[in-house]
Amino acid sequence: MSKARDRGFKQATRIEDARRTFYGALPAISLPSEKVPVRTSLNRILAEDVRAETSVPSFDKSAMDGYAVVAEDTFGASQTNPSLLKSVGESKVGQVPKTIVRRGEAVVIATGAPVPQGANAVVMIESTKRLDTGDVEIYAPVAPGENVSKVGEDVREGTVVLERGRKLKPADLGLFVALGRRTVSVVRKPRVGVLSTGNELSNAGRGVTGKTADVNRPVLMAMVEECGGMPVDLGIAKDDSAQISRKLKQGLKTADLVLVTAGTSVGKGDLVPDIINTLGKPGMLVHGIAMRPSLPTGLAVVNGKPIVSLPGFPVSAMFAFSTFVQPLIFRMLGTEPDPQPKIKARSNKRIVGVPGFRTFVRVLVREENGKLFAEPLRTPGAGILTTLTRANGIVVVPENVEGFDEGAEIEVQLFRPVERGEGAGRT
Amino acid sequence: MSKARDRGFKQATRIEDARRTFYGALPAISLPSEKVPVRTSLNRILAEDVRAETSVPSFDKSAMDGYAVVAEDTFGASQTNPSLLKSVGESKVGQVPKTIVRRGEAVVIATGAPVPQGANAVVMIESTKRLDTGDVEIYAPVAPGENVSKVGEDVREGTVVLERGRKLKPADLGLFVALGRRTVSVVRKPRVGVLSTGNELSNAGRGVTGKTADVNRPVLMAMVEECGGMPVDLGIAKDDSAQISRKLKQGLKTADLVLVTAGTSVGKGDLVPDIINTLGKPGMLVHGIAMRPSLPTGLAVVNGKPIVSLPGFPVSAMFAFSTFVQPLIFRMLGTEPDPQPKIKARSNKRIVGVPGFRTFVRVLVREENGKLFAEPLRTPGAGILTTLTRANGIVVVPENVEGFDEGAEIEVQLFRPVERGEGAGRT
Repeated sequence: MSKARDRGFKQATRIEDARRTFYGALPAISLPSEKVPVRTSLNRILAEDVRAETSVPSFDKSAMDGYAVVAEDTFGASQTNPSLLKSVGESKVGQVPKTIVRRGEAVVIATGAPVPQGANAVVMIESTKRLDTGDVEIYAPVAPGENVSKVGEDVREGTVVLERGRKLKPADLGLFVALGRRTVSVVRKPRVGVLSTGNELSNAGRGVTGKTADVNRPVLMAMVEECGGMPVDLGIAKDDSAQISRKLKQGLKTADLVLVTAGTSVGKGDLVPDIINTLGKPGMLVHGIAMRPSLPTGLAVVNGKPIVSLPGFPVSAMFAFSTFVQPLIFRMLGTEPDPQPKIKARSNKRIVGVPGFRTFVRVLVREENGKLFAEPLRTPGAGILTTLTRANGIVVVPENVEGFDEGAEIEVQLFRPVERGEGAGRT
Repeated sequence: MSKARDRGFKQATRIEDARRTFYGALPAISLPSEKVPVRTSLNRILAEDVRAETSVPSFDKSAMDGYAVVAEDTFGASQTNPSLLKSVGESKVGQVPKTIVRRGEAVVIATGAPVPQGANAVVMIESTKRLDTGDVEIYAPVAPGENVSKVGEDVREGTVVLERGRKLKPADLGLFVALGRRTVSVVRKPRVGVLSTGNELSNAGRGVTGKTADVNRPVLMAMVEECGGMPVDLGIAKDDSAQISRKLKQGLKTADLVLVTAGTSVGKGDLVPDIINTLGKPGMLVHGIAMRPSLPTGLAVVNGKPIVSLPGFPVSAMFAFSTFVQPLIFRMLGTEPDPQPKIKARSNKRIVGVPGFRTFVRVLVREENGKLFAEPLRTPGAGILTTLTRANGIVVVPENVEGFDEGAEIEVQLFRPVERGEGAGRT
């Protein structure tokens, strides 16, 4: 299959060169920002440098229920030789304490309540005893600052605590709340138009004789969603220039980036690339990438907007997406991808690459007796979707490497849990 | 701070023992399933074994535009010595072809169209020439099966293609579509009630003198969402038995799992644990875990429902969540967590653990001159949220390890991208 498909491509561009050409022809894409409530900002990309408008804590705060004291008054205190302090008031949460604590004095204080002026430490309630006289015995010494959360200890007012381009995680949401923020400015999700082409395609699956369910569109839309974009469904176009052209124009109008699958194989001529070239300048920049699968991938820019022409086979479309679309979406968002899990495993079969091409091999990683083995899944064609649903990892064979021998230690990008062998226990 | 907090705990239970006790007291929790449209099933957990009700492809299908032939008729064909075949009809997509292909015959066929009976291969259009006579010259041989996607090549009808407990990813959605499925049965998201306790807490942040913004609730609700649960907001309760009790009961009624923060420190007595014990049997099972931070974590079961009592400090609450709540949510969902990225880095400072405790150290991993360095972030208190927003990784110091020397190679769980040093280039 791939042999035949190759014939249309006189040359294949290396992945990095293709990316460089593509990005070089793209204007600096700056998506607008939008304000969202903090509680819905999880996993969104921060569009502002967040400067603290208040310190955290915003006042000296007790970390304990107990007595606010001058630490020096407790030095040397013990169970047998307590310090005796005069109880002169109380500091409650939500109230500014009026009392000033002087040497020899103590103020009852609750967890989270402001430490009154003059006091520099809090003795926990368990180390004290209130006498009938109203005075209090202290049975353990505290150091200055003990059990006090100092103003600005966590965040100092005016400092930048989170930088634009950051993907927001739970702790960040907590920080916004601590800073009293209700809304946050995030990058508007890039809108990614997804168009499938092919006379053979149908939205229905079963029950339509001789038609093929359009797998690419739902898969690609899910991939767009996964990397933080907003999929825009452009539907299916027949192998018809006018129809494809109309839908691509619609995509360019409504989306920030347009994906179109198929219509680029040899049998159909360069239907999609030719149409793209009629839509605007500079048009197709790269067509044919030195990668397997996904050779028939095309990269284009039309009037400042990127179009990626993806192969028609779902597996090829997915690898082309990971290689070109995903990095572009992160670029548009102004962020970096999350770190990806990688493991070392032993190949239990020879893994063969295609010389001069970067080869992506689907593997199944199994743990047996505490060792990890990667089995390359046979791929009679890039059309075999189940090689991807059965795999839990990807092995990359670089352009200048022939392959990996059976038994070689190889690096695997793991996207699902390792399968446990019969002997291995689950935790 | 931690010294004081420890005093209330006579003994601390090891993490694995605590989990065993906890799970042992829980009935087998089986969440109901729900049918959702395939397009909204991304990242949901499959509740059914998916059996293919149709083969994929469901018929022998051409992978090319060209001619359906009997492969044997093309053997030896070349540019100078073409095979001459009689063109006897056409196979279009969406139509069952009526023609039967015999030796010496060929049928025009479109990509995705059914291969007619008798034919066993497809010659791509570029290797053919149609003559004025209507016959066709074939310039290249094809092997039997070439350019034909055989029925069941991807999926054979009747086989189980996806198993329950699987987290659905884009390729899985594609497979459902290929199988003609419109809906899929997934596990209903576990409802996780989140309650904060503390007189000092307020929903407002800034502008409320002497109050503390409730950071835990939004953080924990985001964490619940991240691991596939459905957060249920139970609000804030004052340090008041009746109020906490009422809200916990409400939580037990509406949620599958209840989280309650604070109210378990020494200063406040065992307020929350005591209340939990009044709610039902067996009540508190473990209180005090041999981990740092998060020692004051409690695990309880009340009338078959789990309650986790989390420490009041946000950082402690988060580590306790990761250690006990997240695995429980995955258990309820009947799935395994995605693989987590781990890297090796050199510690650029000594990292100290607490003997007998599992210590979780927040680190910042930087790349400098191609090498990775992990810097432990100083933690004056578990209250310091910014140690988590500044960190990109976690180092675990096991119970029986004193710590790691400066320069030692350590394993880091990476949850944000590595920071690049001045000299390192970004890609």
